[in-house]
Amino acid sequence: MRKLSNYVPILDWGRRYNRGAFSNDLIAAVIVTIMLIPQSLAYALLAGLPPEAGIYASIVPIILYAIFGTSRALAVGPVAVVSLLTASAVGQVAEQGTAGYAIAALTLAFLSGGFLLLLGLLRLGFLANFLSHPVIAGFITASGILIATSQLTHILGVPAGGHTLIEMAETLLAHLGQVDLITLIIGVSATAFLFWVRKGLKPLLRALGLGARAADVLTKAGPVAAVVATTVATWALGLADQGVAIVGAVPQSLPPLTLPGMSPDLIRQLAVPAILISVIGFVESVSVAQTLAAKKRQRIDPNQELIGLGTANLGAAFTGGYPVTGGFARSVVNFDAGAETPAAGAFTAVGLAIAALALTPLVYFLPKATLAATIIVAVLGLVDFSILKKTWVYSKSDFAAVAATIVLTLGAGVEVGVASGVVLSIALHLYKTSRPHVAEVGLVPNTQHFRNILRHEVKTDPGVLTLRVDESLYFVNARFLEDLVQDRIAEGCEIRHVILMFSAVNEVDYSALESLEAINHRLTDLGVGLHLSEVKGPVMDRLGKAHFLDALNGEVFLSQYDAWTSLKSDEAVE
Amino acid sequence: MRKLSNYVPILDWGRRYNRGAFSNDLIAAVIVTIMLIPQSLAYALLAGLPPEAGIYASIVPIILYAIFGTSRALAVGPVAVVSLLTASAVGQVAEQGTAGYAIAALTLAFLSGGFLLLLGLLRLGFLANFLSHPVIAGFITASGILIATSQLTHILGVPAGGHTLIEMAETLLAHLGQVDLITLIIGVSATAFLFWVRKGLKPLLRALGLGARAADVLTKAGPVAAVVATTVATWALGLADQGVAIVGAVPQSLPPLTLPGMSPDLIRQLAVPAILISVIGFVESVSVAQTLAAKKRQRIDPNQELIGLGTANLGAAFTGGYPVTGGFARSVVNFDAGAETPAAGAFTAVGLAIAALALTPLVYFLPKATLAATIIVAVLGLVDFSILKKTWVYSKSDFAAVAATIVLTLGAGVEVGVASGVVLSIALHLYKTSRPHVAEVGLVPNTQHFRNILRHEVKTDPGVLTLRVDESLYFVNARFLEDLVQDRIAEGCEIRHVILMFSAVNEVDYSALESLEAINHRLTDLGVGLHLSEVKGPVMDRLGKAHFLDALNGEVFLSQYDAWTSLKSDEAVE
Repeated sequence: MRKLSNYVPILDWGRRYNRGAFSNDLIAAVIVTIMLIPQSLAYALLAGLPPEAGIYASIVPIILYAIFGTSRALAVGPVAVVSLLTASAVGQVAEQGTAGYAIAALTLAFLSGGFLLLLGLLRLGFLANFLSHPVIAGFITASGILIATSQLTHILGVPAGGHTLIEMAETLLAHLGQVDLITLIIGVSATAFLFWVRKGLKPLLRALGLGARAADVLTKAGPVAAVVATTVATWALGLADQGVAIVGAVPQSLPPLTLPGMSPDLIRQLAVPAILISVIGFVESVSVAQTLAAKKRQRIDPNQELIGLGTANLGAAFTGGYPVTGGFARSVVNFDAGAETPAAGAFTAVGLAIAALALTPLVYFLPKATLAATIIVAVLGLVDFSILKKTWVYSKSDFAAVAATIVLTLGAGVEVGVASGVVLSIALHLYKTSRPHVAEVGLVPNTQHFRNILRHEVKTDPGVLTLRVDESLYFVNARFLEDLVQDRIAEGCEIRHVILMFSAVNEVDYSALESLEAINHRLTDLGVGLHLSEVKGPVMDRLGKAHFLDALNGEVFLSQYDAWTSLKSDEAVE
Repeated sequence: MRKLSNYVPILDWGRRYNRGAFSNDLIAAVIVTIMLIPQSLAYALLAGLPPEAGIYASIVPIILYAIFGTSRALAVGPVAVVSLLTASAVGQVAEQGTAGYAIAALTLAFLSGGFLLLLGLLRLGFLANFLSHPVIAGFITASGILIATSQLTHILGVPAGGHTLIEMAETLLAHLGQVDLITLIIGVSATAFLFWVRKGLKPLLRALGLGARAADVLTKAGPVAAVVATTVATWALGLADQGVAIVGAVPQSLPPLTLPGMSPDLIRQLAVPAILISVIGFVESVSVAQTLAAKKRQRIDPNQELIGLGTANLGAAFTGGYPVTGGFARSVVNFDAGAETPAAGAFTAVGLAIAALALTPLVYFLPKATLAATIIVAVLGLVDFSILKKTWVYSKSDFAAVAATIVLTLGAGVEVGVASGVVLSIALHLYKTSRPHVAEVGLVPNTQHFRNILRHEVKTDPGVLTLRVDESLYFVNARFLEDLVQDRIAEGCEIRHVILMFSAVNEVDYSALESLEAINHRLTDLGVGLHLSEVKGPVMDRLGKAHFLDALNGEVFLSQYDAWTSLKSDEAVE
């Protein structure tokens, strides 16, 4: 029986909550709140939603995750990749800026939340493993490029669109004559400033004698400085009247109660994107949570994480948000700032609620170009082509999966890109196991070890063929072994015994059993003995149940050395 | 370099052809021809085509296979399952009995031939392995039931239709009032006679003192006897005028030159069914060819088989046929009758050509009910539910794949059935490998062997955790190992060393490498050593290339015993 506190972890850590944890959590919450205000506005912009949606999406979801999630440091809210996926999915069913668009975003959060919750309750978290690390890395790199490119529209002050790199580039180039100069100046200087904050500010502050911690916090506040400076400049110089796009009126309100659209048509159109967003969001979130938990020897439970993220998304759906997940940057900041429990998240929610009520009028004159700059700087940090080089060196098939994911994400959009990556990874894995490594082995002189005859000087016997099968046997490779044995027998007429060495065979499925039966049958017809050696316990149990061991014309030997000593003839040669 | 004779095997065996082989081939050809005449007419009926299409499909394809195929005994032509698939595919684009229907069947053969040829030239024959044995067995059983049910329409003399068991049953029941009594009598008695020929005739002939070979040949001629008897009866008693459906006029002609329909629309609609037919036909054909070749210690080359079957289907497309493949029954008869080379097939083609020219007027009065009876008796021999019981005993996941294939083939049609079987097999395999067996092992006293601590009395050391991983590590299970190690470390605080025993790890892909790096990183943070033992050569090479071995905080030991002796403390307990 699973206890209630397994499903509601707050019952566990909440009981032991104390003053020390409270003050640590509070400090972390203040730092994270300052960082999140511009970020939330910016990601809402990326998702094609009004800016307040980003703040709303950070309040109730954070509280729900604090109740149901297992990570002590994960900060849940809008993140770049999920915002891009939202824009891509919702853009296919509604026009940006319409009420239908916002409602579709709620529906997407609702479907995604429901799906995550269902997976969690059914304990199907392992499904996320079908996204391989290289595919995720490739996808995130390509998404970063797509996101940065999409933000050029705000930096240049021209309309843009499209879901692939080519479409975006075409739209941008078509409007290049209409670039707004003042917007461009704001955008470029904000971007340059933020890059400098990222790379150059901290060393400078340290050189000026500031402590490491203080330098860190000031660096994190860089985006806030850019926001303040450009907002003040826009207001003071009246730049909005000269064509600079600004955030404008943001309602002063706590998250409103909203209802996601529930028409069957809408649900059908958004179901597949919702699954994709759920899985990608979950994978990103779990890796962050796991990395942070490991540093303190804590555990996270992936299935409970599904429940935490599921309720967070359901919360977003009913409070004016859009799909959320655990973000990398905000979680690391939270962790570094000393957050001890999920209560830090709840305090962040309170901070953002205050911001939503009190600070929203202050962002009226905030140029969209500044928000675009914060996004560009953040996502270019995600772009990392080194995965291509690393996989090229390590394994060509992993390389193929990454390269396909990157090229297709850029060239055909996020959904096609990530789906192709997953399918290709699975196909390549099946392909590799379909042609398993099978070594003919012989005895290393003066030992009881058997090694590949092609790599080592070993004793062999022309009458005894020993094949070491380096793969589990299942339907994809069953016939391969059948063919191999048949080919070897057709070649070597003096063979009297075939030994299959099963030390690395972890499974024999029914197709492989039939292949073994076929091999046994054919060898029996030819008067050749078939023997097995070093068969694992579970495999042995199965073969026994199927009566294969009764039908086997030879013997099963515990060790290959036993098999060799009892089958070899005097002709054995070195 | 592959030699020309690899692609055109006739250049190899043709050179050594002699008088002995010639007379053996000729005898086999006569027997097979007699068997094929009614069978070809019947399968054409099943495919919804005019009877002559079945004969045409047996002539040129057989000759092309004789030139390009590698099996000495395989007989290529129309077979039951492929005929059913043809009816299902072509029925979706054209009305039975129209010119469009016949043309679509030619297109299907053309696409299927092109696809097989392409796979063969690209040497992709292994793709057929994705159809697991149990899925094929389940599919053939379900197809047999569908085919037999579909033939009830000719036995009862009522119209029928539908592609699933339920649809067929509904149509038959709806027309039950219109059953034609004379047709029913012919159909039932022909079926009963053929079942008796199959089961009872041979023992009777042997009891009457006939030799085994002669009894065999007479048994094979049973369908011919049924054809002759019912045709003569229908003609003599004028039954055609009383409502018995007859074959009618069949053109007296050699196979005509035909052109498959090439409209892009038709090709698009038939492409997927063509792939399905190709793969199923190929798998069936290769298993037969392999079984027969093995009996004579001969080899068949699956990729060359693709080329042989591909050209055979292209031949069918241009000579009035429809998709063909190597049939089980006809090939076994050919083999048993003593065929030595593919020339036997060519002689069969000559026999059928003579039949097409001279004998077609004789089948004018042949009742369709007789042909239906030969099909029913043939396909019910394919129905074998024992696969359900066998897989249930052996492996529940194989059972699930078979059961789904059977239920969906019967309930949703052949295409859905076989596709679901393939997808489910792959999904179940991935699921199984996603949760690999990992055993904690300890030293068996007085040996150098390490065994599962749960199954054996072994020595362990609370400071040393040894995990034997019984599966290749790849993206689907990489995170599983990561979680497992983390959970174990979170539980056991006195652990100082973790040893991963890699004796059954055949591959470590890039995702798994990253997981190993993460494990190493986390253990390093905690001051716990990570060690590997019994790593295979290819895996070791890869890990070295990726510099993982440099980063590893512990050592790589050749054997688990070495690892144990150098890491264990004095506290080691039994």
